[in-house]
Amino acid sequence: MDKAAREALARAAGPANLDASKAGREAYSYDATGHRHPPEAVVRAVDTEQVARVLAACTAHRVPLVPRGAGSGLTGGALAVAGGVVLDMAGLSRIVEIRPADQVAVVEPGVVTADLQAAAEVRGMFYPPDPASVGFCTVGGNLAENAGGLRAVKYGVTRDYVLGITAVLPDGRVFTTGGANLKSVVGYDLTRLLVGSEGTLAVITRAVLRLLPLPEAKATVSAFFGRLDGAADGVRAVMASGIRPVACEFMDGPSLRAVESYAGLGLPEGAAAMILVEMDGPPEVVERQAGQAARLLAEAGGEPVHRAADRAEAERLWKARRAAGPALFGMAPAKLNEDVAVPLGSLAAMVERIHQVAERRGLDIPVFGHAGDGNLHVNILFDPAREGAEHQAHQAVSDIFAGVLKMGGTLSGEHGVGTAKLGYVGAELDPVALGLMRGIKQVFDPAGILNPHKSLPGPEVAA
Amino acid sequence: MDKAAREALARAAGPANLDASKAGREAYSYDATGHRHPPEAVVRAVDTEQVARVLAACTAHRVPLVPRGAGSGLTGGALAVAGGVVLDMAGLSRIVEIRPADQVAVVEPGVVTADLQAAAEVRGMFYPPDPASVGFCTVGGNLAENAGGLRAVKYGVTRDYVLGITAVLPDGRVFTTGGANLKSVVGYDLTRLLVGSEGTLAVITRAVLRLLPLPEAKATVSAFFGRLDGAADGVRAVMASGIRPVACEFMDGPSLRAVESYAGLGLPEGAAAMILVEMDGPPEVVERQAGQAARLLAEAGGEPVHRAADRAEAERLWKARRAAGPALFGMAPAKLNEDVAVPLGSLAAMVERIHQVAERRGLDIPVFGHAGDGNLHVNILFDPAREGAEHQAHQAVSDIFAGVLKMGGTLSGEHGVGTAKLGYVGAELDPVALGLMRGIKQVFDPAGILNPHKSLPGPEVAA
Repeated sequence: MDKAAREALARAAGPANLDASKAGREAYSYDATGHRHPPEAVVRAVDTEQVARVLAACTAHRVPLVPRGAGSGLTGGALAVAGGVVLDMAGLSRIVEIRPADQVAVVEPGVVTADLQAAAEVRGMFYPPDPASVGFCTVGGNLAENAGGLRAVKYGVTRDYVLGITAVLPDGRVFTTGGANLKSVVGYDLTRLLVGSEGTLAVITRAVLRLLPLPEAKATVSAFFGRLDGAADGVRAVMASGIRPVACEFMDGPSLRAVESYAGLGLPEGAAAMILVEMDGPPEVVERQAGQAARLLAEAGGEPVHRAADRAEAERLWKARRAAGPALFGMAPAKLNEDVAVPLGSLAAMVERIHQVAERRGLDIPVFGHAGDGNLHVNILFDPAREGAEHQAHQAVSDIFAGVLKMGGTLSGEHGVGTAKLGYVGAELDPVALGLMRGIKQVFDPAGILNPHKSLPGPEVAA
Repeated sequence: MDKAAREALARAAGPANLDASKAGREAYSYDATGHRHPPEAVVRAVDTEQVARVLAACTAHRVPLVPRGAGSGLTGGALAVAGGVVLDMAGLSRIVEIRPADQVAVVEPGVVTADLQAAAEVRGMFYPPDPASVGFCTVGGNLAENAGGLRAVKYGVTRDYVLGITAVLPDGRVFTTGGANLKSVVGYDLTRLLVGSEGTLAVITRAVLRLLPLPEAKATVSAFFGRLDGAADGVRAVMASGIRPVACEFMDGPSLRAVESYAGLGLPEGAAAMILVEMDGPPEVVERQAGQAARLLAEAGGEPVHRAADRAEAERLWKARRAAGPALFGMAPAKLNEDVAVPLGSLAAMVERIHQVAERRGLDIPVFGHAGDGNLHVNILFDPAREGAEHQAHQAVSDIFAGVLKMGGTLSGEHGVGTAKLGYVGAELDPVALGLMRGIKQVFDPAGILNPHKSLPGPEVAA
């Protein structure tokens, strides 16, 4: 960034909102991938108009700009890999309004997802998207990545709750899409084009989100399995039963042991897998379906199968599940974190394939995740100090991806591409479709300044 | 279309699949709007490869092409307004497979929606999108328009059930988006960009659709109201109660009388409104919620409130609702058919506004539709032979649209823009967003041959 660019940026952002200090740049250099890319400057977003001025300055001076929520993304979406500016959206954190009569919330992107859930709940409403990082991730990051999470089986993903967006184009023009209507078919669906575009098309500064009525009751059933195929049978039986669980989560033995040593929750030792099923709805259904799920899991070989006696006990189980990601960080000096998804019927085959790869490559690969929608988190653990281990780990990723694509699966169910999967996108996406995506990127960001080298591989209009 | 174009088209389509006869052109000249635009030729789609050849020939010779499902659209999407070719997709009507383990169906676009519903049901599965025209509309048309229908309150719209698409670009290139995965975030969401794009971006030749488990039980409650505001109170009470009805439908008095004289169902005379609520799910919930809905509707002044004793009786009530559209065709020599939607909390205000407009303009404007998601069908009846009536009818549309937009509503909840609303789109859409949509159209269809003069107003790349 040259002097003219820096001055233009300071004018656009307001000098107090621009930080080019070493400490500031350092603080914004990393995300949950553990990689480091210090930006040349950090800008704190203040309002839509200021974001528009900042983007226009960046386009005019060909300075890359990377929007950043909480930095909790797992694929590098918030990293300044091409230098330039990190735009910190955390300050735009107002819940502007919750309108129960319209069943919507209007929020700024820096709102922490759990805070939105809590604010909705106070009014008897429910914001279903629930990524495991819900306590610290932001709505803006969730929109950028189309975050999924624990309740997607029944309630869908972030995309399904976005009704309208206010966003800023790289050239500084502000625009809105959609509104507060539950249905609308006027014009192309730019709302859902922006969701999941990983901050490469526009910077979202406001969103209208759909809320649902709060479910009356919930129940959680846990089942531990001595054999992995029993757990797969259990998932299959629950999903085929007509129950629509809120969540149907899977953790394998290594994941369970990691969580136990991390959080000391008193989980049974020696289990090969755990299945957690949550039901919600009217109390009499939840009651019946909890019994039905418990029976199906026991028939599949679950032992013990247990229904949480109260919400406190259920919360302990969900805490174990949510701790799985963080817990695995302590298990090995390095891990590669993938979140492949396959068509539901191929779930057991995928788990089996991953175990074969682990054995062949001589690696630990704990697996946990969202069995109910075919989306599993695959954690390839290795010690970079060990000769050849890193190579084997990357080979394992390739092996697993090849298997996933052969099953008609996808390389990411909810984490996104970022930089982490850029090299593999070409193997999944149709080349014509990829060309169309590049064409769309050109329409939104002809100068190529917005989050460059993310999401779409190939010829960037380089900054 | 010149001779060279016609010959190229015959080669591309196969001579037996091309019909340029007067009778053939006449048969494909109209749709449910009642407007007539005879194409220069009709091509019967046979398979993806042939569709690709036909599109490439049209692009090479700058011949407009209009894909057509059942012609049941209400905004002119299937009309050859710029001449050229109508591509009849009805022959691509295979349900390729239903995969219960993956919870998906793979279908061609010519499948009649009700046939897909029935095929899924045989396997214990459920395809929720349910436009009132379900018995004759096609899946391809539903995708093009992002069709809504009676169950959208609980189950969402067509968009929410599309996992993957095979489509052909105007230049003949075939591409796929998505797949059979319940979650995927690799690349931009072209799947949902195509859904609702009204056949202006690509021709869909195959789709992977999500299925759900079939609900165990259903119940229908009807309530008649002497006063319109009682009906509005009833809808509000049901929607705020925590019940998530499958459908929450509204018909005003004139709609009820039209249906009665059309179908003779024995509906009570003199009612100002009817509300129909359907619940589905486990039988014990349906039981309780049906009672709860009946109580709420009675408290709001419903009289009589009645729960259908069995499916046969419920079907009679739904038949009345589905007959509303067709019935109104008989009420006046001409009607304008709008399907505005507003944020849920503004529903009663919208109905009131429409009645004011009817009074001011001296017109009958029966209203019915999807109260549970704020989407109402507004039927402006008039006699073109009466001096000034047509002018008043068009003024009424403008009055209603102005009110809808003031409430933050949208000009179409589920019918789409087509040609019918083209003149009003600019009043709803953000001009920057509209520019982005035009840019996207350019990426997909630089020659502008695909369904020209539909969906997006303004500078067409004219054929």
